[in-house]
Amino acid sequence: MTLERYRQVRDFTTKLAENLEPEDLVVQSMEEVSPTKWHLAHTSWFWEVFLLEPFLPGYEPLDPRYHFLFNSYYVQAGERHCRAQRGYLSRPTVRQVMAYRAHVDEAMGRLLDSGREGIRELVDLGLNHEQQHQELILTDLKHVFSVNPLRPAYGSLPSSASAIRSVEWLEFDGGIHEIGWDGKGFAYDNEGPRHRVFLEPFALADRLVTNREYLEFMEDGGYERSELWMSEGWGRGWTEPFYWERRDGEWWSYTLGGLRPIAPAEPVVHLNWFEADAFARWADARLPREEEWEVVAAGYPIEGNLADSGRFHPAAARGPQFYGDVWEWTGSSYSPYPGYRPPTGAVGEYNGKFMSNQYVLRGGSCVTSASHLRPTYRNFFPADTSWQFSGLRLARDL
Amino acid sequence: MTLERYRQVRDFTTKLAENLEPEDLVVQSMEEVSPTKWHLAHTSWFWEVFLLEPFLPGYEPLDPRYHFLFNSYYVQAGERHCRAQRGYLSRPTVRQVMAYRAHVDEAMGRLLDSGREGIRELVDLGLNHEQQHQELILTDLKHVFSVNPLRPAYGSLPSSASAIRSVEWLEFDGGIHEIGWDGKGFAYDNEGPRHRVFLEPFALADRLVTNREYLEFMEDGGYERSELWMSEGWGRGWTEPFYWERRDGEWWSYTLGGLRPIAPAEPVVHLNWFEADAFARWADARLPREEEWEVVAAGYPIEGNLADSGRFHPAAARGPQFYGDVWEWTGSSYSPYPGYRPPTGAVGEYNGKFMSNQYVLRGGSCVTSASHLRPTYRNFFPADTSWQFSGLRLARDL
Amino acid sequence: MTLERYRQVRDFTTKLAENLEPEDLVVQSMEEVSPTKWHLAHTSWFWEVFLLEPFLPGYEPLDPRYHFLFNSYYVQAGERHCRAQRGYLSRPTVRQVMAYRAHVDEAMGRLLDSGREGIRELVDLGLNHEQQHQELILTDLKHVFSVNPLRPAYGSLPSSASAIRSVEWLEFDGGIHEIGWDGKGFAYDNEGPRHRVFLEPFALADRLVTNREYLEFMEDGGYERSELWMSEGWGRGWTEPFYWERRDGEWWSYTLGGLRPIAPAEPVVHLNWFEADAFARWADARLPREEEWEVVAAGYPIEGNLADSGRFHPAAARGPQFYGDVWEWTGSSYSPYPGYRPPTGAVGEYNGKFMSNQYVLRGGSCVTSASHLRPTYRNFFPADTSWQFSGLRLARDL
Amino acid sequence: MTLERYRQVRDFTTKLAENLEPEDLVVQSMEEVSPTKWHLAHTSWFWEVFLLEPFLPGYEPLDPRYHFLFNSYYVQAGERHCRAQRGYLSRPTVRQVMAYRAHVDEAMGRLLDSGREGIRELVDLGLNHEQQHQELILTDLKHVFSVNPLRPAYGSLPSSASAIRSVEWLEFDGGIHEIGWDGKGFAYDNEGPRHRVFLEPFALADRLVTNREYLEFMEDGGYERSELWMSEGWGRGWTEPFYWERRDGEWWSYTLGGLRPIAPAEPVVHLNWFEADAFARWADARLPREEEWEVVAAGYPIEGNLADSGRFHPAAARGPQFYGDVWEWTGSSYSPYPGYRPPTGAVGEYNGKFMSNQYVLRGGSCVTSASHLRPTYRNFFPADTSWQFSGLRLARDL
Repeated sequence: MTLERYRQVRDFTTKLAENLEPEDLVVQSMEEVSPTKWHLAHTSWFWEVFLLEPFLPGYEPLDPRYHFLFNSYYVQAGERHCRAQRGYLSRPTVRQVMAYRAHVDEAMGRLLDSGREGIRELVDLGLNHEQQHQELILTDLKHVFSVNPLRPAYGSLPSSASAIRSVEWLEFDGGIHEIGWDGKGFAYDNEGPRHRVFLEPFALADRLVTNREYLEFMEDGGYERSELWMSEGWGRGWTEPFYWERRDGEWWSYTLGGLRPIAPAEPVVHLNWFEADAFARWADARLPREEEWEVVAAGYPIEGNLADSGRFHPAAARGPQFYGDVWEWTGSSYSPYPGYRPPTGAVGEYNGKFMSNQYVLRGGSCVTSASHLRPTYRNFFPADTSWQFSGLRLARDL
Repeated sequence: MTLERYRQVRDFTTKLAENLEPEDLVVQSMEEVSPTKWHLAHTSWFWEVFLLEPFLPGYEPLDPRYHFLFNSYYVQAGERHCRAQRGYLSRPTVRQVMAYRAHVDEAMGRLLDSGREGIRELVDLGLNHEQQHQELILTDLKHVFSVNPLRPAYGSLPSSASAIRSVEWLEFDGGIHEIGWDGKGFAYDNEGPRHRVFLEPFALADRLVTNREYLEFMEDGGYERSELWMSEGWGRGWTEPFYWERRDGEWWSYTLGGLRPIAPAEPVVHLNWFEADAFARWADARLPREEEWEVVAAGYPIEGNLADSGRFHPAAARGPQFYGDVWEWTGSSYSPYPGYRPPTGAVGEYNGKFMSNQYVLRGGSCVTSASHLRPTYRNFFPADTSWQFSGLRLARDL
Repeated sequence: MTLERYRQVRDFTTKLAENLEPEDLVVQSMEEVSPTKWHLAHTSWFWEVFLLEPFLPGYEPLDPRYHFLFNSYYVQAGERHCRAQRGYLSRPTVRQVMAYRAHVDEAMGRLLDSGREGIRELVDLGLNHEQQHQELILTDLKHVFSVNPLRPAYGSLPSSASAIRSVEWLEFDGGIHEIGWDGKGFAYDNEGPRHRVFLEPFALADRLVTNREYLEFMEDGGYERSELWMSEGWGRGWTEPFYWERRDGEWWSYTLGGLRPIAPAEPVVHLNWFEADAFARWADARLPREEEWEVVAAGYPIEGNLADSGRFHPAAARGPQFYGDVWEWTGSSYSPYPGYRPPTGAVGEYNGKFMSNQYVLRGGSCVTSASHLRPTYRNFFPADTSWQFSGLRLARDL
Repeated sequence: MTLERYRQVRDFTTKLAENLEPEDLVVQSMEEVSPTKWHLAHTSWFWEVFLLEPFLPGYEPLDPRYHFLFNSYYVQAGERHCRAQRGYLSRPTVRQVMAYRAHVDEAMGRLLDSGREGIRELVDLGLNHEQQHQELILTDLKHVFSVNPLRPAYGSLPSSASAIRSVEWLEFDGGIHEIGWDGKGFAYDNEGPRHRVFLEPFALADRLVTNREYLEFMEDGGYERSELWMSEGWGRGWTEPFYWERRDGEWWSYTLGGLRPIAPAEPVVHLNWFEADAFARWADARLPREEEWEVVAAGYPIEGNLADSGRFHPAAARGPQFYGDVWEWTGSSYSPYPGYRPPTGAVGEYNGKFMSNQYVLRGGSCVTSASHLRPTYRNFFPADTSWQFSGLRLARDL
């Protein structure tokens, strides 16, 4: 059962790259973006370092130098290659990386068959880790292709609906609520401990902000009105969302399906936190706190995305709409929940050491693995990040 | 009464510079630091722009170009001189800036005598603004002098006590508490609205962390152990607190009284947030949340500092110790309280536009105006700031 | 005859890449380095823009967007892609670039067959241009492979001789000499006009400086003695030649054949101008002026290299040794000869616009096309360049 | 006699600062610019280190820390303060620096009275060094004042003539000429050895390029025509000469007398080398080679400037015009003359270590000491320097 799931997850990673050319897998278009080849290798490194080396007796690495080459950021796992130079590596080639994957898969097959105990949690973590990198492969490829003047497409996208649903405001009384992981199913360490929070009365929009609404903000001078902006986000030269460009008086944006005209009914996406925050202020609203989002979203069914539909683009705004279209910026800085302690060892670096100067995003996007969609999931990025599939929902005090 | 207070506050600003040479008032030793001359002028600008121009009929500025030159960051108050180039201005000279102060003071005297209504809040803000810059004059001068190889002193400091009091842990039950300004006396807009928070049970140390304790952290390899550090603070070359230097095997630090050996019983000061956070982790503790600090500190008497004693250096650790020694880093990112709205107009830029990627500090330091010491005061700085008088207190979950 | 030569040159470019993986052709490891794929495409662009578009009626480009994508630096040929981002382009793929080459070759075949007059000089320039990029392909690949911790090799190198010939000093009387292109055979515009120069009496070493001699300089503290260095080259952190590294107390260097121990008898290579200049001062000598080099070298036979032997590495020092091992830094800043005028139009940008703040190198290296070896050839690079195959010969005043 | 000259030179340095405020003497407005206070101190340091310490028995420095603080760039004279931070030093104050000058002057008085032999050359060098810093005081103050939005003036300037003399071309046959210091009077080491050069026939304009001519270049799109520019100077955002600004459709420039309308008849000044080179190309001419300039200028009388007239601004174009208006960019890279060797010891760093990537300027400007005006003087600056009083004269091949 586990082996079958392992193979499904691993195969899906490979599948994401199968229609690409080897050249596409090499490029790193900015420091935050990693080459697809690197993702394919690093996910294998994760299994090797956290499962095979400690738990499979006699395991021999395919190439011991990969330990250095494909460590992402785990200081306690030893020295590692410089992140900014991942795109300088033509070797190992794609073929060699695939051989590395096969080598790891063969060994993982033996480990999972062996009945070895005490590895269940790490295997779950490895699978979820691999799925996070599936999302990153698509996010990063989008950036790689976007900086190429030829504007290649990753695949074809379905057309988008055109009707725009008006917003319904979902109102909630204040009081004490519980948030955080309740112990059922998989969750990352940063989703717990479950704990109580006090909320003042508030309302949340039942759907995401659309491109049409964002265009109104732009037409109303949103990018030129300093009173809407945090000082840190002001004067940085932003004039439209990332991936947008103006051609012959019309707004287009680069998508995984290539350059397309802006679809008014779709959620606005690729905003950074400052843009989301400024838009909310313009709309006489604010960003939700992450606890508000969780309390509300927990009451709605989860709809799938990537693994189910392969659409790789947010669907038109609808209501209720909480999962699987765009990551939603919240007003909450990413910090530990009361009582949080990271695991010991290198694996404790997974989430815990990033709890400074980042903002929490909730909901999951159209390129997030369907199994990651849940009310408690806490994604996090620096406030000026915009190459992620990030948008927003409005909130208000009552 | 108000006029008298106005004069007291204004005179104290001038007094801080009276033993300095004109040359000392010109230098900007890094972008965050402003020349004393600039502080003397900008505080006058504040009165001119927010009180005299709108409320004193017939007011004529001494030099209309100062409107541009001494605007700090108020976008809605018009164009302004580049912050990084404040140290490039030899003119207006110190004497001319003093004439500017006198010009503003004379006009403010007329305004305050005039019985004009509706300016009380702005006058209060102006006085508190001026006092914040008194603190900055000292903080900035410390930096200016510190980068000079001659290591000049600002003044003489009293000697420090040597006995170190052990820490008492103050324990608190969780539950719902109220924090924020209750409407009595002056407070900045960011201290309200008063609102309820839910806290889990916790304990706070009754005093600040000392130099002796911090030296133990250093001797235990604190700066080399990655597991103690946020990723963002790791690998930045820090090896001791700001202003510390090693001479002949001993640690010294630059103070407003010149270079002095580290006093073990004094609170450690000039830490950035990452250092404070790493120390707390090393001590098997954590930084307090700002609401925890406020709930506890509200129960203790406020002791004065700068205006009363002129000591300009934190006193030895004692208990209870909450106010007037060092600013205490909290684990709380600086964000708006529920229901917060900044005032309209340029004055709304005072605090509200900085609510991103900064951390809250509480308590007030040895160079903070005594009238600023209160449980609700929220100071804030970016996490890598260390030229402020910043230290920490430990907290623990119960 | 011309068509045959065209095919030889074009085929040799392709041949240089034939044993590489597609991934190797994509990487740009620093701004000065271009991906092999880019060199393959840009050389085709040159034929397209300077020969096919103006002279072949009805020529249709394979993809009009390549005009933008593969223009290197010809402002008068239109807008162009950013040099620093050549490594961000996964598309066109290697296969597509090869199709571009074939497309251009087919059209060039027609043009050369057509008997079109007035293109002879441009065809010569195109061939020489292509050969310069053959050299760059090897130089750049060396850098790309060198930054990869796996240290892949481009090919295998012959072993090196070990005997070191002592230097003979070739002495010359001063007086008036002529230098520059005499009108026979091909030369770049910057090699003329031929003109007279006056030289004081001088001597030139008959061979290049060796690794053994350079090691003596290093062991004598050459990198730590400020009096040997130009101020501009001092304090930049250089401690050994580029590509050198110390392993277990021995010096190795990265070569196109992989990492190898330093061979004492080989010419030192990958020096920047400051290193060459400092070495010469240490040796109580100086760099030759370019006119001195030319006057002397014109008296010696030209020995081939790359196209003949495929060795891709400088041969051991021998005497006389003037051509085809390493480029020799001269003390001459790159400037126009008296009476020089670049051609009009974009082709005039080939050499003329680079005549500031660069130094002239003479002689040609082991990766230079054999047909480029001649006394008048003026290569030029900025003084801190070291990824070229650059070394030195000593000169002295008499 | 020498003592009298010593006092004249030293007094003139002080006199240049006597109408300034202490604040003016502190500011460093960019790395290349030094505070006046620093110039006052560094020139004293020069006497202390090169004359008093080696030659006056029992000399005691006023403050031994000044050895570190006021060493400019002499590596062999020990560690030194960071150039970029000269503006961070409020201490020593102006008064303390003046005391340092008096201390050095008193000791120099004793040394010069003592009849000590063997110091004549060093005293000459010290005087010329001090005079170079007199020029730099004015040049640097101009920059300091110019970046201040208040645009203070250093002094008053005479008005400028308006008639523009047309250019006469001075024609010269080619052949062998001698250039360089002939051993009479003082010269810097870089002006020798005297040696022969061969020149092709050429012509030089008899006067400098004027503002009117430069405006024609601008109006003809000079800054937008890539074919006129060296690649290194293209695309750097220059649109007019340094210190120029457009107000209400007219061009003004900042001068030591404050902001003034451009005077068409005056020589264009504050060009960088790329602008001078582009202008010459536009005018179908070229920059003179330094040897051409010297051969021609040696035939014309030297007219004084600064010390004589105090005008601090170039006079209107006239003919012949070779000395004392603006430094003239030449096409010659700054390199050693044949046979040049710098003196041994720290004093050898004066000129010799800067012989890379700089261009030679000839003639002397309106702020150059009159005694520095001579045909052999070689000034040198990097090609993008424009805060010096630098302009050009045209040359042509015949």
